[in-house]
Amino acid sequence: MRLPELRASVCQANLELAASGLVTGTFGNVSGIDREAKMFAIKPSGVPYDELTPENMVLVSLESGLPVEGTLRPSSDTPTHLELYRAFPCSGIAHTHSECATTLAQARLPLRCMGTTHADYFRGDVPVTREMTREEVESAYERNTGVVIVETFTSAGISPEEVGAVLVANHGPFTWGKDAHEAVSRSDILELLARMECTVRAMAPDAAPPARYLIDKHFLRKHGSGAYYGQK
Amino acid sequence: MRLPELRASVCQANLELAASGLVTGTFGNVSGIDREAKMFAIKPSGVPYDELTPENMVLVSLESGLPVEGTLRPSSDTPTHLELYRAFPCSGIAHTHSECATTLAQARLPLRCMGTTHADYFRGDVPVTREMTREEVESAYERNTGVVIVETFTSAGISPEEVGAVLVANHGPFTWGKDAHEAVSRSDILELLARMECTVRAMAPDAAPPARYLIDKHFLRKHGSGAYYGQK
Amino acid sequence: MRLPELRASVCQANLELAASGLVTGTFGNVSGIDREAKMFAIKPSGVPYDELTPENMVLVSLESGLPVEGTLRPSSDTPTHLELYRAFPCSGIAHTHSECATTLAQARLPLRCMGTTHADYFRGDVPVTREMTREEVESAYERNTGVVIVETFTSAGISPEEVGAVLVANHGPFTWGKDAHEAVSRSDILELLARMECTVRAMAPDAAPPARYLIDKHFLRKHGSGAYYGQK
Amino acid sequence: MRLPELRASVCQANLELAASGLVTGTFGNVSGIDREAKMFAIKPSGVPYDELTPENMVLVSLESGLPVEGTLRPSSDTPTHLELYRAFPCSGIAHTHSECATTLAQARLPLRCMGTTHADYFRGDVPVTREMTREEVESAYERNTGVVIVETFTSAGISPEEVGAVLVANHGPFTWGKDAHEAVSRSDILELLARMECTVRAMAPDAAPPARYLIDKHFLRKHGSGAYYGQK
Repeated sequence: MRLPELRASVCQANLELAASGLVTGTFGNVSGIDREAKMFAIKPSGVPYDELTPENMVLVSLESGLPVEGTLRPSSDTPTHLELYRAFPCSGIAHTHSECATTLAQARLPLRCMGTTHADYFRGDVPVTREMTREEVESAYERNTGVVIVETFTSAGISPEEVGAVLVANHGPFTWGKDAHEAVSRSDILELLARMECTVRAMAPDAAPPARYLIDKHFLRKHGSGAYYGQK
Repeated sequence: MRLPELRASVCQANLELAASGLVTGTFGNVSGIDREAKMFAIKPSGVPYDELTPENMVLVSLESGLPVEGTLRPSSDTPTHLELYRAFPCSGIAHTHSECATTLAQARLPLRCMGTTHADYFRGDVPVTREMTREEVESAYERNTGVVIVETFTSAGISPEEVGAVLVANHGPFTWGKDAHEAVSRSDILELLARMECTVRAMAPDAAPPARYLIDKHFLRKHGSGAYYGQK
Repeated sequence: MRLPELRASVCQANLELAASGLVTGTFGNVSGIDREAKMFAIKPSGVPYDELTPENMVLVSLESGLPVEGTLRPSSDTPTHLELYRAFPCSGIAHTHSECATTLAQARLPLRCMGTTHADYFRGDVPVTREMTREEVESAYERNTGVVIVETFTSAGISPEEVGAVLVANHGPFTWGKDAHEAVSRSDILELLARMECTVRAMAPDAAPPARYLIDKHFLRKHGSGAYYGQK
Repeated sequence: MRLPELRASVCQANLELAASGLVTGTFGNVSGIDREAKMFAIKPSGVPYDELTPENMVLVSLESGLPVEGTLRPSSDTPTHLELYRAFPCSGIAHTHSECATTLAQARLPLRCMGTTHADYFRGDVPVTREMTREEVESAYERNTGVVIVETFTSAGISPEEVGAVLVANHGPFTWGKDAHEAVSRSDILELLARMECTVRAMAPDAAPPARYLIDKHFLRKHGSGAYYGQK
């Protein structure tokens, strides 16, 4: 994807996020990367969604982490996106404060895989990060948010390709995928899953998760070489 | 109903399902059967709802379980529909991942009949299936989903004509009725009932169900030879 | 109000009910009475809301309880309305299966007065009726529903003018007021109050109600000779 | 801001409140002050939102607390606004009965700061007032509501500039800010935060709050001289 297309695609994905009902005010941001150009485009900081255009998306260098042109500041969460692009094999990232995913994050609870709706998208629990230390918060906070996300996946042996989402403790969700649009659609499904999980926890706190073979069946029905869902 | 009408009716019912707000993404599917022709029409797999037409509904033989024409694959849940058409005296089936019915399924809880809103449509609890075994999941999964639904009704002595819905454990609801439209409208009412049941379970876990005679009164006020609801 | 105006007003109030989002399918009905003519108009049974016209509202005699003209059957809940018009000094009645009011009814819990939003409309708890006996359900069920509502108010010394609503156990709410429109708007506020009450019960089951003097202050700020809310 | 502009701005903010979905019926009101003119404009009492115009906003003197012109009565909550303008350095106030903020108020629970969504707007818990005494309710009730709000902030050492919202026990929220529009947008975010808090309390009553340094980081990222969110 060339840079003008990337700008247009990331702008469009930010508008999809706004249209999804997942954001309040100026919360949330979406980015997409051109891995050959080593550049990603991201929403400018604090700009209302109805003022977004392909031109005001901010281009950021994957190597330096700095904007490469223009005068608008990129999203304040840019260093988090940067860490994720460096560590995870994804090409689009979305961040929201969607209600129920954020609620789980505020309770520091993972989004457990309790059924096939979840397993169709994520192969297992969506983890919640550990609390950040005072040092991590007070210096390079946004970069450290990314570092802690990556640590969460590495230390628990979770594949970021099989589970394209995380809940940042007392903050909210990040999702990622093959492009900005997939990241946004995963934010949408994540919120549905989080609504269901909040209700299960309130009404049936001891409910057992499904067997691993059911989760694998559904994930592999849609993903990978043995997939048979949809048209060829 | 002749086959062109069946296609049109099933396409329309799938669009009603999409309009109902019960589906996210490409989840969900509706079918309808022509029992004389021994053929049912069903949504193609993974096709977005806004691309559905009568022509791309897939016709499947009740006898062979195979598509009888066209090049699109039928819904991956087709073998479940097939088992239900073979065992139950219904002519339309709908499957959704609607939020609260799925939440109950994820907690493996039945949708209890707690009032007259429920009894107007279903004569008693909507059961939840048992967990499927590894063998049932790993081979002929979708067919076995149907087998386990039928087993649930048979083993508990529930009439599929009086209770036109089931919750598949850790998966979601199926509903059925006299045609595809009734199946969809039952999915809609099922979701309302499930929302109420989730709330009762969260706030009043020990609430007692109503007397059987109240349930029977409401069901029979609307169904069967003694019905007196509506116009003659 | 003359009978053509009554028909038009009751039809309009039924349409307001449908527009309010409180009804699913053909659930719910509204009536209004002309006390001089001793006649009330009510929704016909099982007719979809989008087919309602002033002409197909059914006129029922307050004395005989029978339709006085036309060929459509009145709502199956007509005998309940009749009992309420005979016992309570109201001129409009609405019945819904709105989600959270019905949820409380299904748990057989009153809608407690927990704050000023409630006290602005209802001077104290909205009661829930006792369970009906087999005899009450199996003969003259709808009439007995009204009888049990009236008994609930009489036995607890609740004024139907100060509390214009009730929850029928395992069924749903009825509201009443000075005309059909007020009955509908009370159904609307009742549902908001019920949503809040369900949440309080789920998250803070031991929350204490406000002092009686706060309830009285708010009710009397809006109702009666000392009211000072709104314009003169 | 001159008085005609103030009227227009306050009228517009009341319409934003109505459009936000936070109000039912005629609940809710917004005001804005011209501190030089010592005058504030406020919604008239009990007038439907669709009849509001800049001309029917009521001007009230900050010194006398009385309307200075026109024939419409100001909102019955005017004395509460007056107390807040006298004690707090704000220039706009909004009052709603929004569902979940009111639910917390009815349970007499504060809206705890459980995450960064909250800390982006309010630097710490939004407090709930103490119960009012019989004397406070029965005489000068609305004025005393304001007195108790101010007491809540003073006695707990909370800055009304850092926490621009309160929950009045068994009543509902008030929010304030630099003008009427900011007050309304804070009512909107407050409701989102309250929805999340109600769910956390229902599903994870023992969840711990985040560290103070995380709250401070997010609040100061957006507010004050070290802010770096948004464009310069």
